[in-house]
Amino acid sequence: MKDSYAKSGVDIDAGNDAVRRYRALLGSHRDPRVLEGIGGFGGCFELSGFRQPVLVASTDGVGTKVLVAAALQRFDTVGRDLVNHCINDIACMNARPLFFLDYLAVGKLDAAVAASIVSGIAASCERYGLALLGGETAEMPGVYSEDHFDLAGTIVGALERDAMPDTTSVVAGDAVIGLPANGFHTNGYSLVRHTLDRSRWYDKVDGSMSTIADAMLAVHPCYLPYIDAIRTSGVAIKAMAHITGGGLLDNVERVLPDHLAARFDRSTWTVPALVRQVVREARLGDEEAYRTFNMGVGFCIVVSSSEASKAVAAANAALSREPISGAAQPNAAIVGEIEPRHQCGPAVIIS
Amino acid sequence: MKDSYAKSGVDIDAGNDAVRRYRALLGSHRDPRVLEGIGGFGGCFELSGFRQPVLVASTDGVGTKVLVAAALQRFDTVGRDLVNHCINDIACMNARPLFFLDYLAVGKLDAAVAASIVSGIAASCERYGLALLGGETAEMPGVYSEDHFDLAGTIVGALERDAMPDTTSVVAGDAVIGLPANGFHTNGYSLVRHTLDRSRWYDKVDGSMSTIADAMLAVHPCYLPYIDAIRTSGVAIKAMAHITGGGLLDNVERVLPDHLAARFDRSTWTVPALVRQVVREARLGDEEAYRTFNMGVGFCIVVSSSEASKAVAAANAALSREPISGAAQPNAAIVGEIEPRHQCGPAVIIS
Repeated sequence: MKDSYAKSGVDIDAGNDAVRRYRALLGSHRDPRVLEGIGGFGGCFELSGFRQPVLVASTDGVGTKVLVAAALQRFDTVGRDLVNHCINDIACMNARPLFFLDYLAVGKLDAAVAASIVSGIAASCERYGLALLGGETAEMPGVYSEDHFDLAGTIVGALERDAMPDTTSVVAGDAVIGLPANGFHTNGYSLVRHTLDRSRWYDKVDGSMSTIADAMLAVHPCYLPYIDAIRTSGVAIKAMAHITGGGLLDNVERVLPDHLAARFDRSTWTVPALVRQVVREARLGDEEAYRTFNMGVGFCIVVSSSEASKAVAAANAALSREPISGAAQPNAAIVGEIEPRHQCGPAVIIS
Repeated sequence: MKDSYAKSGVDIDAGNDAVRRYRALLGSHRDPRVLEGIGGFGGCFELSGFRQPVLVASTDGVGTKVLVAAALQRFDTVGRDLVNHCINDIACMNARPLFFLDYLAVGKLDAAVAASIVSGIAASCERYGLALLGGETAEMPGVYSEDHFDLAGTIVGALERDAMPDTTSVVAGDAVIGLPANGFHTNGYSLVRHTLDRSRWYDKVDGSMSTIADAMLAVHPCYLPYIDAIRTSGVAIKAMAHITGGGLLDNVERVLPDHLAARFDRSTWTVPALVRQVVREARLGDEEAYRTFNMGVGFCIVVSSSEASKAVAAANAALSREPISGAAQPNAAIVGEIEPRHQCGPAVIIS
């Protein structure tokens, strides 16, 4: 078989080698919730501790950040980007992450590269308590060129039926707390790459000590520890938005009641240096910039104004224990306020 | 934003158009288990009716069958391949499928093409009772060429903790029932394409009335209705194997106790004409052929010999109600027998 298949561009030996390396990655921590399945046709996960479980699932990729990783031959970060992004997404519903499955597709399978990519996935799963329940590595000559790959994944989490944030509790006067971003996360990379030619990637970012390459590959933060810290402090979280594609403008609108708007005060946070540089060089207007990039605010949490400083303090205590690498500012802050929405007015105002 | 992003090769209008088309596809059937989430950051699915639920999940792609679909501009079948493949995988654990999420990545987003691909996913989800809970469509210029795409997906199902097939109940003398395949399903397409040059795809398959193109794109059958029919007939299913990459040789071994082997009698079923042709033209030996392709047996079910004819009758009644299009033979059959495994001997013997 090896011969016939090898002629068609699919390398069985590399596939077996990759599987061995994945097993080694996962061998160190056994998750008791993962049950022995039959024949490995699917991963089995015992769900317990829920009265009325609602499963929350999301599939995502890391976009053309994979092209940056491939060009720079740094393969261990995109997996963390992916898992962290997915955790943040379902955290908006108060869901606890349970397990993750990855899909890695390559033009030509290099087992060491594949293992490096999956090592990032395994690392974030371990850090945040997810089981890496399964995955698929596909060698697809003709779909991907030899040195290209794509990476996507699916997260499944759960929460009690009655535990979703009650976004109807949001009222005018509530505070919006922003958690710091450390770059583009996983959005807008086609535009970033179009703006910053590859020949410049080893230059320093304007006004910064880090290279464009490092700043481009900054790992998407997982905001779960900071959200948990706010929740543990006793503050009631009314709504949360993960600032992904669509930026503050689209993502905050998604969680607000129709009659309310969020007004952001941009003097309250710092835009990461590379994001500023790309916005300037690509000549993006505010509207474009705030709908394409997170502009330095990676996650928004709406709380009552009376609880806002307590929430910020709790988040900042967690941020000092576990800082976000590469963030332009180390701390959470009150970045906006909820106000009545004007008829036909925007749901999100950046002032 | 449209302008800046369009320059980088990402088409926001096409993305919005695709989302509108997906909504139209899904609008017709509302699944009461799917709850309104917050902001659409994840799909929410209420899990009920289980005492001790075990979730079973699997991620897969359709391999380079996507290149055949793209070359032939037939986009509505690969989604059904994907969902049906995933249902079969978790069916081996007795899991009921609950929901599905898809990942579609394209070089250049054509909303009509994307909707056609997703329509296949939606059709299989509707037919087999899964909620299409979410998905991601990524336009990734530079990763994929303009007319290429990749498609992967994740299924989540569930079963009671004590309801997994008990494969230790398999004993020598048990019968292996085979359900018919209708082609390569989603495996071995790199080898198939290497063997059959694209210039020949509109030729007839040797000894068949259908074109190579049609036979290559035959939709992967979903075996759930036939498995259900056997179960409903009262027959105890001891073990099941979905015959995917690795063929009968690898996939049946995965579900057998170490001391047992399965002996298949190849006179008991028919190999689809195109599979025969590729095996012949690629000069595959038996070992290669039976480890690369399903060779006409898409799914194996192990039952007690005393219940075998009852199981076959139940499966055949279901197959006559819902035939497998393009299968070389219309019926299920006893295709093998379990026997003691010789020390150092193979777990699967094709005789």
